[in-house]
Amino acid sequence: MAERVVVVGGVALGPKVASRLKRSDPDAEVILLDRVRRISYGGCGIPYFVGGDVSEIEELRKTMYHMVRDEAFFRDVKHFEARTGKEVLSIDRKSKEIRYRDVDDGTEETLGYDKLVLATGSSPVLPPLPGSDLPGVSVVSNLDDAERIKGMLSTGLESAVVVGGGAIGMEMAEALTDLWGVETTLVEMMDQVLPAAASPVMARMLEKQLRDNDVAVYTGTQVKQIEGDEDSGLRAVETSQGRIPCQAVIFCVGVRPNSGLAREAGLSLGPNGGIAVNTRLQTSDPDIYAGGDCVEQHNLVSGDSMLLPLGSLANRQGRVIANNLSGLRDTFPGVVSNFCVKVFDKGMARAGLTFEQARQAGFSPVSAFVIQPDRAHFYPDSKLMFMKLVADARTRRVLGAEAYGPKLDAVKARVDAVAPLIGSKADLSEVSNLEVCYSPPFSPAVDIVNVAGNTAQNLIDGINVSVEPQEFVELFRSTDCNVLDPRSEAMAGPCVEKYGSRWINIPLSQVPYRLEEIPSDKPLYVFCNTGTTSFEVQRYLNAKGFTDVWTVAGSYAAMLNIDPDFVS
Amino acid sequence: MAERVVVVGGVALGPKVASRLKRSDPDAEVILLDRVRRISYGGCGIPYFVGGDVSEIEELRKTMYHMVRDEAFFRDVKHFEARTGKEVLSIDRKSKEIRYRDVDDGTEETLGYDKLVLATGSSPVLPPLPGSDLPGVSVVSNLDDAERIKGMLSTGLESAVVVGGGAIGMEMAEALTDLWGVETTLVEMMDQVLPAAASPVMARMLEKQLRDNDVAVYTGTQVKQIEGDEDSGLRAVETSQGRIPCQAVIFCVGVRPNSGLAREAGLSLGPNGGIAVNTRLQTSDPDIYAGGDCVEQHNLVSGDSMLLPLGSLANRQGRVIANNLSGLRDTFPGVVSNFCVKVFDKGMARAGLTFEQARQAGFSPVSAFVIQPDRAHFYPDSKLMFMKLVADARTRRVLGAEAYGPKLDAVKARVDAVAPLIGSKADLSEVSNLEVCYSPPFSPAVDIVNVAGNTAQNLIDGINVSVEPQEFVELFRSTDCNVLDPRSEAMAGPCVEKYGSRWINIPLSQVPYRLEEIPSDKPLYVFCNTGTTSFEVQRYLNAKGFTDVWTVAGSYAAMLNIDPDFVS
Repeated sequence: MAERVVVVGGVALGPKVASRLKRSDPDAEVILLDRVRRISYGGCGIPYFVGGDVSEIEELRKTMYHMVRDEAFFRDVKHFEARTGKEVLSIDRKSKEIRYRDVDDGTEETLGYDKLVLATGSSPVLPPLPGSDLPGVSVVSNLDDAERIKGMLSTGLESAVVVGGGAIGMEMAEALTDLWGVETTLVEMMDQVLPAAASPVMARMLEKQLRDNDVAVYTGTQVKQIEGDEDSGLRAVETSQGRIPCQAVIFCVGVRPNSGLAREAGLSLGPNGGIAVNTRLQTSDPDIYAGGDCVEQHNLVSGDSMLLPLGSLANRQGRVIANNLSGLRDTFPGVVSNFCVKVFDKGMARAGLTFEQARQAGFSPVSAFVIQPDRAHFYPDSKLMFMKLVADARTRRVLGAEAYGPKLDAVKARVDAVAPLIGSKADLSEVSNLEVCYSPPFSPAVDIVNVAGNTAQNLIDGINVSVEPQEFVELFRSTDCNVLDPRSEAMAGPCVEKYGSRWINIPLSQVPYRLEEIPSDKPLYVFCNTGTTSFEVQRYLNAKGFTDVWTVAGSYAAMLNIDPDFVS
Repeated sequence: MAERVVVVGGVALGPKVASRLKRSDPDAEVILLDRVRRISYGGCGIPYFVGGDVSEIEELRKTMYHMVRDEAFFRDVKHFEARTGKEVLSIDRKSKEIRYRDVDDGTEETLGYDKLVLATGSSPVLPPLPGSDLPGVSVVSNLDDAERIKGMLSTGLESAVVVGGGAIGMEMAEALTDLWGVETTLVEMMDQVLPAAASPVMARMLEKQLRDNDVAVYTGTQVKQIEGDEDSGLRAVETSQGRIPCQAVIFCVGVRPNSGLAREAGLSLGPNGGIAVNTRLQTSDPDIYAGGDCVEQHNLVSGDSMLLPLGSLANRQGRVIANNLSGLRDTFPGVVSNFCVKVFDKGMARAGLTFEQARQAGFSPVSAFVIQPDRAHFYPDSKLMFMKLVADARTRRVLGAEAYGPKLDAVKARVDAVAPLIGSKADLSEVSNLEVCYSPPFSPAVDIVNVAGNTAQNLIDGINVSVEPQEFVELFRSTDCNVLDPRSEAMAGPCVEKYGSRWINIPLSQVPYRLEEIPSDKPLYVFCNTGTTSFEVQRYLNAKGFTDVWTVAGSYAAMLNIDPDFVS
């Protein structure tokens, strides 16, 4: 082809496009520009640098074998030209030129292109609140922010407020607390953490996990202003729930796509302000490609347009752009939006839609919440994990999956296994029959993905009638109902003692012989260890003529992760 | 429906059918029979009982909350009748009756059925060799075998031969060696361990893993006879590679489907001797269902019929049978055959076809062998993992995936994520673009599944020209060729010293400036840390006019797991 390709942006997608293009089409002339000097870094690693898991910031710019990805590296190893400290000012699409300025000396230059790639990424939102311009207020954007925050920590920061309960907010809260012992408060405007990614029951578990690890969590709480002054620093954050004294504030309230350059050049944008692209990742100008954080993504499940700022996605889209530039036709159909986050020693992952997102997208969702061990229950170190599966009751199409548990890879494994089925609009039976690798050290004979599929089918078929654990607590406290607890006397003891005659303990194997002790005049919630036995008992009681019987999904094991006081 | 359903077999599928059926159709009368007394056990757990990870054999028969799955349990908790110690002798399909005998008192009885389910499982093969009937020779079939083997161990067994290098053979070898310190030899007739599940490069790594953990491994070796006598016990195993002294022999050479009852009743069998079933899991008699180890499975990739004795599969098929029996129409389309095995502290998983199986099935396969860290390389405890992806060069359809590494769940995660694409006959681009959950503690920004997909595409497109590490060793030893090593001087040093002028070290960033040092008259193999840099250098040299340049897939990191002497 031997064209000149100019790439604007050098963090993830930009270097990927340039490197791949030079491999598939070595004759192409490739020039990459970025405003900053330190390009090609693992931005997702910033919380781990702040928290001390990564000791040197340069590690985030190095290859696995310790080469720093600087201009010389890109020249000698990837064979393209990287110009750093160059801010692109404008695109002239008619003459096919860009104009850029050197950030140090201010000189401006013009550079022609045959094809242009916009890899401009996104910028963290800093809300324009009173005090948000004070020193001590940060966002988490690039290596400079990372170093500034770590600098504050190493000079004795004692208290901080993290605003925003998304992945980065929770990761930063962990980083501040775990290594540095900073008194940390997480403030989230919505009524749960991870409002865009997690269902309420998963969010409750994450919030408890944060609190158990000394992070104060305020959901449904708005930040109104930040108190402090230039000289003596920050004093507090004023919120809708009161004043939280602190010495630093870190805003993690999301990002905005850097689409200004594209907009000014007259390229089409999407509903979320990202650059609009087709499946070949071309913008409305076919000679200009774009991908990663700065573009709108097509959600394969809801059909909606969304933003999805993930380094992994940027890399995949970078390859598709490079392939198209080099004549290897390639497409990127859309996203299921797999996502995961580590919160202290537990992991949460999801793909597709939550129940609420499915409802908003026009589906008739049901959601199954199940608990299973992450390997054969007799195998050493088997741990309980949690899964949520969302499906459409009308079409039985699988719409979303979430998982939570102490083994990060096990959590990831389950969501990644179901995600392709979400993308392919598969029927729930495909989840019930989903093959996953089985051997006792890896999984139980009936894996949680299959249990989740089966349970969702049982819900749609009306065989399983259940409530979620947090809903059950509300119902138990506010309505006239009874609980049947088929656990052992020892296990059920604390609840029987606490709740008296409303909490009826009949050990599982005695149920058939003690049916007359079970009241049928009020709603009856069956509460066992994990919800599995509850369902069996619910079905048995249905067969014996009991009609108002409910399975408490997750039961005791879920309650321990949501509201342990309720059951102790 | 209120029919009588008789289930023959009580290990995995049988109890699943009966339990599920009673939940979905509580009015059904369900009677389960099994020849043995101790039913419903986790047979896959036997190696872990022998090896001590599971301390009591009854653990394999208990639910997660410590209830033993005996007749009383099935009566009171699952609400069906289990009759143990009853051997089914024959099926009279005309009168819809079975005849069975009590194994203790020999009395016979007849039992009518409306629907019959054959859950007869499989039996381990004990080859009819001289001496294979001696005491001290075992198979691994049921809890009695498990106890007998553990009995031998606890009375001081010092040496053993395990015959068969499949999953159970490797697991038993580990069990004998790891806890008990038994001098253990693994003998496999084929030229590699896991001949049915692993490609040669994966098998080489597994064999090294076994040897590193004190298991002697003899592949391509046939057992001819077992020496010993009734009184003094075993003395040795005579093989095609010589005599191996030992006190015990455990045969793990595969299983045969227990299809005799079906055959004698005139039901159709498949090419492997398993019972033939349709997608509803009905046999050739629509009133008789069958599933699990005793039936033929439809391989969705090759289109062939196969046996797949896995407890997980039995459970999934049990549910499908129960659904069909209760009027919830359900189907089981076939298998991709996900599989995994732990070998000491490493895990191997696969799904679909190996390169060789794909060739035999009529595809034109290519296979990509790649190495990547299992999480961000800068994240603590990041480890290298290995992946093999097989695809058809003509259609670009993905056919198989294998993974190997030290984190069992991480290995499982990758294969389970790709498996649905194998089942859906997806194009390789779907592997390149496959979304998997990303965050530095879970995966690198470019996950190994995507790298494997990209590499397979590069191979098909002729961009990547590579040899596998074990092939490279052969070629280097037997042909006139050179190696270009772009690692650092320190890394390359031992090889340069060992192989002299044939091993040319030019550190990566110096390659563009030292092209004249690279000979172009012979095949040139580029050997780096993991194969990634080799590919980059191969492409760069191609662009500079070098034609006979080969990437050594896996390079140094693979060699460490196959033949470390070659590189040290």
